[in-house]
Amino acid sequence: MFTVVAERINCTRKFVKAATEARDAAFITEEVTKQVEAGATYIDVNAGSSPEAELGNMVWLLGVVQAATKLPITLDSPSPAVLKAGLEALDGRKAMINSISLEEGRAEALLPLVVEYNTDVIGLCMGSGGRMPNSAAERCEFAGQLIAATRAAGVADNRVHIDPLVRCVSAEPDQGAEFLKAIRLIHVAYPDVHFCAGISNVSFGLPQRTLLNRAFLSLAIWEGLDGAIIDPTDRGVMAQMYATLAVVGKDEYCMEYLTAAREGLIA
Amino acid sequence: MFTVVAERINCTRKFVKAATEARDAAFITEEVTKQVEAGATYIDVNAGSSPEAELGNMVWLLGVVQAATKLPITLDSPSPAVLKAGLEALDGRKAMINSISLEEGRAEALLPLVVEYNTDVIGLCMGSGGRMPNSAAERCEFAGQLIAATRAAGVADNRVHIDPLVRCVSAEPDQGAEFLKAIRLIHVAYPDVHFCAGISNVSFGLPQRTLLNRAFLSLAIWEGLDGAIIDPTDRGVMAQMYATLAVVGKDEYCMEYLTAAREGLIA
Repeated sequence: MFTVVAERINCTRKFVKAATEARDAAFITEEVTKQVEAGATYIDVNAGSSPEAELGNMVWLLGVVQAATKLPITLDSPSPAVLKAGLEALDGRKAMINSISLEEGRAEALLPLVVEYNTDVIGLCMGSGGRMPNSAAERCEFAGQLIAATRAAGVADNRVHIDPLVRCVSAEPDQGAEFLKAIRLIHVAYPDVHFCAGISNVSFGLPQRTLLNRAFLSLAIWEGLDGAIIDPTDRGVMAQMYATLAVVGKDEYCMEYLTAAREGLIA
Repeated sequence: MFTVVAERINCTRKFVKAATEARDAAFITEEVTKQVEAGATYIDVNAGSSPEAELGNMVWLLGVVQAATKLPITLDSPSPAVLKAGLEALDGRKAMINSISLEEGRAEALLPLVVEYNTDVIGLCMGSGGRMPNSAAERCEFAGQLIAATRAAGVADNRVHIDPLVRCVSAEPDQGAEFLKAIRLIHVAYPDVHFCAGISNVSFGLPQRTLLNRAFLSLAIWEGLDGAIIDPTDRGVMAQMYATLAVVGKDEYCMEYLTAAREGLIA
């Protein structure tokens, strides 16, 4: 099973921001439902249109999302206070915090919430001061530091989802391969840890980005990626995911691929 | 650079067979030109509609193909006599023989032609009696036996293009992964040897095969595949190839991807 964290409930998107500010529950419900029907396994909720409105938006959005689906929810915010308020607003369902990193104070502020609310957590391979990783080895080193912190807090490895951080290949041609090698390195070093990566940065600055994103998703799945933050209503991306799982033997007898094809999810 | 062996001039295709038997040079020329414009780097010629007609068809087709393009040609036949007649019909351009294997007598009959006409050669990882390989290790073992034979004949490794033989995942879920691992094993063991694989068998028996073929092509390229027998007029497949080479850093600064996008080859 691949974890599809559905990305559309995000207040940095214009229509979602407007609907959230207008408390338009019907619009948000439809966005959630579309993602659920398309194959989402988690709903990401990002309420960050403005710092002063974020907490109220998050709590309102979580109410609407929980009424629309039973799926687990990813709480996506830079603010520990917003995440805490969001966790309080949950109905007891499974949740994931998006995200910790190696930036100063970040893991220290959020790991107590991960423990208190028994959530999963996304760990970004971003270094001190927001430094981006350059090589596969550096990504693996950052992942190791994150996992040392989650272990110290008592969080089981299988509740940690590493994002090795994709960087664009237009400026730095090696960054795609370094990301892919990092997946393999981290997977071998920490076999119980999951992944949850954003993919689309790989194609920044290039035309027909979806082609590049789709190819890159295939390669990452082959290297061990078992989760991604994507838009499941993009049938091309979902088709690429199902097809890749089938050809690499992670979809026994292609049952999920056949079901998705029958349900028209990969048309 | 990826070697695109264009597969459309093949008399097992109904319209090509009919055009060849009718000596319809205009049809064949158009098929060649479409493939050249779509990005072919080799033109495969298979004249095998019937054993008695094959030699005459091959010689006629080669005349038409050579008038239509300066690209090198892959001579595709089970018959050493047809291959010999085809090689005699060439105008001195670069050529490739498709193919030798470990079937009894096959390499022995064809390697003298490879040497005499200074061609490249495709080596199928097919064992004695036409046995198909099961594992990555067996594919690598078959490749090693083929390369021992080409070396013994004095053929340089960089003139050999191995096809590790794709098998369908619908019946045997592991066969995709075993093929991919074989690419890596063979690439590491024989770094100067090239690859030239057919891809589409992976999806036999499944719906929407092109999705599976495209995903699998990406994975094979990442593992080291540097050539394939494909239909370059299928823009989806070519798009997948260009996009994959870009994201894995085998297309420096994405120049080939950008050129292909500008020329509308990956629309």
